[in-house]
Amino acid sequence: MDLKSGSYKLDKNIPVPLYYQLKKLLIDEINNKRLKVGDSIPTEAEFCEHLNISRPTIRQALSELVSEGYLQRLKGKGTFVSRPKIDERFFQHLQSFNNEMLQKGLTPTTQILDLKVIKGIAGICEKLNIAVEDELVYLRRVRYADEEPVVYLETYLPYKYCRGIIEEDFVNNSLYSILEEKYNIKIFKVVRKIEAVNADDQVARLLHIKKNQALCLVKTTAYTEDDIPSEYSIARYRGDRNQFTVELYR
Amino acid sequence: MDLKSGSYKLDKNIPVPLYYQLKKLLIDEINNKRLKVGDSIPTEAEFCEHLNISRPTIRQALSELVSEGYLQRLKGKGTFVSRPKIDERFFQHLQSFNNEMLQKGLTPTTQILDLKVIKGIAGICEKLNIAVEDELVYLRRVRYADEEPVVYLETYLPYKYCRGIIEEDFVNNSLYSILEEKYNIKIFKVVRKIEAVNADDQVARLLHIKKNQALCLVKTTAYTEDDIPSEYSIARYRGDRNQFTVELYR
Repeated sequence: MDLKSGSYKLDKNIPVPLYYQLKKLLIDEINNKRLKVGDSIPTEAEFCEHLNISRPTIRQALSELVSEGYLQRLKGKGTFVSRPKIDERFFQHLQSFNNEMLQKGLTPTTQILDLKVIKGIAGICEKLNIAVEDELVYLRRVRYADEEPVVYLETYLPYKYCRGIIEEDFVNNSLYSILEEKYNIKIFKVVRKIEAVNADDQVARLLHIKKNQALCLVKTTAYTEDDIPSEYSIARYRGDRNQFTVELYR
Repeated sequence: MDLKSGSYKLDKNIPVPLYYQLKKLLIDEINNKRLKVGDSIPTEAEFCEHLNISRPTIRQALSELVSEGYLQRLKGKGTFVSRPKIDERFFQHLQSFNNEMLQKGLTPTTQILDLKVIKGIAGICEKLNIAVEDELVYLRRVRYADEEPVVYLETYLPYKYCRGIIEEDFVNNSLYSILEEKYNIKIFKVVRKIEAVNADDQVARLLHIKKNQALCLVKTTAYTEDDIPSEYSIARYRGDRNQFTVELYR
């Protein structure tokens, strides 16, 4: 992106904020492939000098582009055009995280933060249609694609259906394959609820993002063919790294 | 919620931040229906006195609950338990906004911000598979449920397929019914891409939310039976007021 060429201009005479003009200009460059994945973008000082705009204006444009996933800051190195968001189909097909990432040519890894039996939690037991006195299996994971954290997952299972599951290897095996092969629980239907929320401190730390960055929150209840709820999960996907696609027909 | 009863306690001896404990406590009260929609919650001073925690701690818990949609602040009146999020099925069925809201017992209204013919935009014309010289119809709307803004919508149509459409009444008629009845364009398939983003200044103002609040961004491309792309839309749904549900079967 050669600012000296003079082909980039902002217009101070229209009622569109300058930060917004700069943001649009950079998005156009990315969409038109004049800026490619991994390309560095000019420094604040360069934007400042050649476009004649203030540093706060530049900072606002760049920080919004970072939070929207267009750009990525690397400490001590500069600001670069990000890889496009991972496009997931898991609102359309039932598929494991590992398979979905492998299909996209990304290397999935899993970090297990917790795998234990806990006392019943009223709101969760209700969704699993078990008594509030019943114990739960609590599985807490961060899942990575190419070593970058993508999603923070909290999973609850009715302990009485899967005693012994806390000995299983959740790094290399998918939850649904373990449930099916070891406990004869075959997931037949899932109901997902999708929301957008801001990241709190804890989640921001786990996903290597800033507090308040937008997340896709996905709550899943999974059922067997006999309509027995067998899993309740809360997934928090980084908004800047994920998008989800669905196709609908009339 | 009677704080004087002494039944609400936070635990200063565990490594869970106090704001987080307070937040969980209030979510439990809401989930267990001990706090109901429209109930007011105690003031900062009351939390401060009876739970023995600092004002910044209380503020952090409450502001996260507001941004997550559990609570709502009304100026000069206090903080109240919100209505639950609107649960939309539009990742599962093709249905107009008005019909979907009416089915939920909500009153839909539409504000038209723009309806005009504009010059082609490279990124948009590409998605609509038309030449970049081709003009576009640009329709910009805010849609409300019970007088509360729910979604900000930007819609682009290839002008050559629907000359005259800028005379239509988009307040009372749905886009798809106008396209079908007046222009013989029958939408057969839509592809939606869902992301989570933070609200910028402009969108925050239009949706009556704070800057940076999380939004569900939904990009839709709609196709006819002959696979001709006939609409491209960018919708920004308030994260605190909307959730989307899909059901998947194996």
